[in-house]
Amino acid sequence: MENFTYYNPTRILFGRGQENGVGAEVAKYSRRILLHFGGGSIKASGLYDRVVASLADAGVDWVELGGVLPNPRLGLVLEGARLCREHHLDFILAVGGGSVIDSAKAIAMAAVDDGDVWDFFAGKRDVTRALPVATILTIPAAGSESSTASVITKEDGWVKRGYNHELLYPKFSILNPELCFTLPAFQVACGAADIMSHLMERYFTNVRNVAFMDRMLEATMKTVIAQAPKVLANPTDYDAWSELMWAGTVAHNNLLDTGRIGDWGSHDIEHEISGIYDVAHGAGLAVVFPAWMKHVLHNDLDRFVQWAVRVWNVELNVYDREGTARAGIAALEAFFHRIGLATTLTTLGVGTDRIDEMADKCTEGDSRIIGNFVRLDTAQVKTILKLAA
Amino acid sequence: MENFTYYNPTRILFGRGQENGVGAEVAKYSRRILLHFGGGSIKASGLYDRVVASLADAGVDWVELGGVLPNPRLGLVLEGARLCREHHLDFILAVGGGSVIDSAKAIAMAAVDDGDVWDFFAGKRDVTRALPVATILTIPAAGSESSTASVITKEDGWVKRGYNHELLYPKFSILNPELCFTLPAFQVACGAADIMSHLMERYFTNVRNVAFMDRMLEATMKTVIAQAPKVLANPTDYDAWSELMWAGTVAHNNLLDTGRIGDWGSHDIEHEISGIYDVAHGAGLAVVFPAWMKHVLHNDLDRFVQWAVRVWNVELNVYDREGTARAGIAALEAFFHRIGLATTLTTLGVGTDRIDEMADKCTEGDSRIIGNFVRLDTAQVKTILKLAA
Repeated sequence: MENFTYYNPTRILFGRGQENGVGAEVAKYSRRILLHFGGGSIKASGLYDRVVASLADAGVDWVELGGVLPNPRLGLVLEGARLCREHHLDFILAVGGGSVIDSAKAIAMAAVDDGDVWDFFAGKRDVTRALPVATILTIPAAGSESSTASVITKEDGWVKRGYNHELLYPKFSILNPELCFTLPAFQVACGAADIMSHLMERYFTNVRNVAFMDRMLEATMKTVIAQAPKVLANPTDYDAWSELMWAGTVAHNNLLDTGRIGDWGSHDIEHEISGIYDVAHGAGLAVVFPAWMKHVLHNDLDRFVQWAVRVWNVELNVYDREGTARAGIAALEAFFHRIGLATTLTTLGVGTDRIDEMADKCTEGDSRIIGNFVRLDTAQVKTILKLAA
Repeated sequence: MENFTYYNPTRILFGRGQENGVGAEVAKYSRRILLHFGGGSIKASGLYDRVVASLADAGVDWVELGGVLPNPRLGLVLEGARLCREHHLDFILAVGGGSVIDSAKAIAMAAVDDGDVWDFFAGKRDVTRALPVATILTIPAAGSESSTASVITKEDGWVKRGYNHELLYPKFSILNPELCFTLPAFQVACGAADIMSHLMERYFTNVRNVAFMDRMLEATMKTVIAQAPKVLANPTDYDAWSELMWAGTVAHNNLLDTGRIGDWGSHDIEHEISGIYDVAHGAGLAVVFPAWMKHVLHNDLDRFVQWAVRVWNVELNVYDREGTARAGIAALEAFFHRIGLATTLTTLGVGTDRIDEMADKCTEGDSRIIGNFVRLDTAQVKTILKLAA
């Protein structure tokens, strides 16, 4: 096990009706906030009305900024920062999914920074202060509601990059599974794929003696596998949504990283797909991950065998360890198909003609090596994308 | 699943050598602290010297208060509070196990309270402020290093009571598995029993649809079962200690409670044993828990079957569910025996002549019902203690 620091101060308020108390929670921090959201779904569902009623009741004023798109963009971040400065707003409430929350976190940094906020995402410098952010989560997926991460796309060149810092932990996040009842099935499936991917990125590590967190990751993966099909079959199944929603947060709140080094190569490869084609992040991951696994399988066959046996209940064949491991990968593909996702670029509807371009961008022309479980250069990224074709 | 709030801001600094940075961490909060510890073991091991060197290097002054006993006592808490007031100390560093940390938390409340600190433990009022506490943990067991809990014994009547409050979360806790290498085997075993008990108290719940946290609790139990015998067989096995130590913290940091209501009846019963006989808390729990299980088995036989099959790898006999469940309890007893613990009052060396007195004190003469999975009155507590005889 590696030495580690674990720290996560985000307060989780979980369950039915929690969003009705958001005003009182916000008022502990601020009376003038930016209310940040995406499209019209929170207005159609009535969530918007409940949130602004609670804010008004608590004496909190707000300025609104909607319009966050999937793969949230730098342009809107800069607009949000401008609003915060102009209206002297010192707190951001994000109501939505990971894109809205990531956008809010980027605004929180940009609003109090004199330079170019993209510097953080480009790895040029570290943030030293940020406005406090809180969230009302509407879909389990990105885990941003209790993470240090923000992922933003810069329109100039369509470059998608992530940044992590403790200052980006939300002060609190409200998780009410009922808010998920009206989600489109495809978004639900993409969210489940995103959660599974967060767990698999952590699971496949070269660090030895991480048995406790292996077990915790397996427990969380088994939860996603059991509950995602239930919420798709019955979108108002509160109990199944509760399990999936809480699993989505725990999957990415840094606990399950402790003592190990995750891979994250598949995330980097997927960012190039969704950066160019604007597909949903989870849909891209469902394509990349099985291909990545087939490419890296022999780096640690034992780890793939353990994963297949414990997570997917594959029967161990000690005389065919590779077959056991590959049965696990096949089970992952079957799971993605079951929840309605494609597992090849072709069935995703993305062409294979820009594989070279994506691989080059991903590694920045071999000036950046991605992945930790296996370090990937441009040629290997191309191989993986071809396996995914 | 029940609605819940989850919040845990304790920073964990885990791994080799972390204690050598304690001075710099403390200096972020204070320059005048109470250094609180137990007997001479931290001086014999050299830990004391490293800690005070680090404090001195960081310009932190300290006043010392050693002498914390197992089942920490109110008298020393009041002495610590007096020292804090007299010397204007505004931070407490606990170096030791759960007893030292619990004592530090009680001092943290008493030092800034004008009334009787026992009021909190007696349930008469709630704390509104407390000094910040940090810890260097020397044994995985109580989980106090990242919990809201403090358990103190009042010498007048030998009453042992616990209190929980968010203000009691340590600011940071240092966990270096190497510090456990010199622990006596019996203390290690008692610690493992304490951790298992924290997990089982949470596991046995009547709340439905808590499948995710069931899995997480099972993952943590399997870790304790796998790693405790390893550290007993080889006390310098850093890898096994790492797994056990981190599991001990996660077992009691409130994550694994989320959405469910734990039982805690066995803890209440055990407090009467260790309150009267001053046996180690973990040793008492190893006696109480199997007896409690035999008494409450039929409240939810399915839950015991799940526990036996998943945690203990008992083969499911669908035609003999009770036999399957009882095989799990037998496996728990075998585990306690394997790590050197007694599972009856007689083999623990505690008489059976004061069972009536313990049961009466536990329920305060039937004025208090204990346990949640099954609500226990005095007669049932007597039955359990007789099953444990």
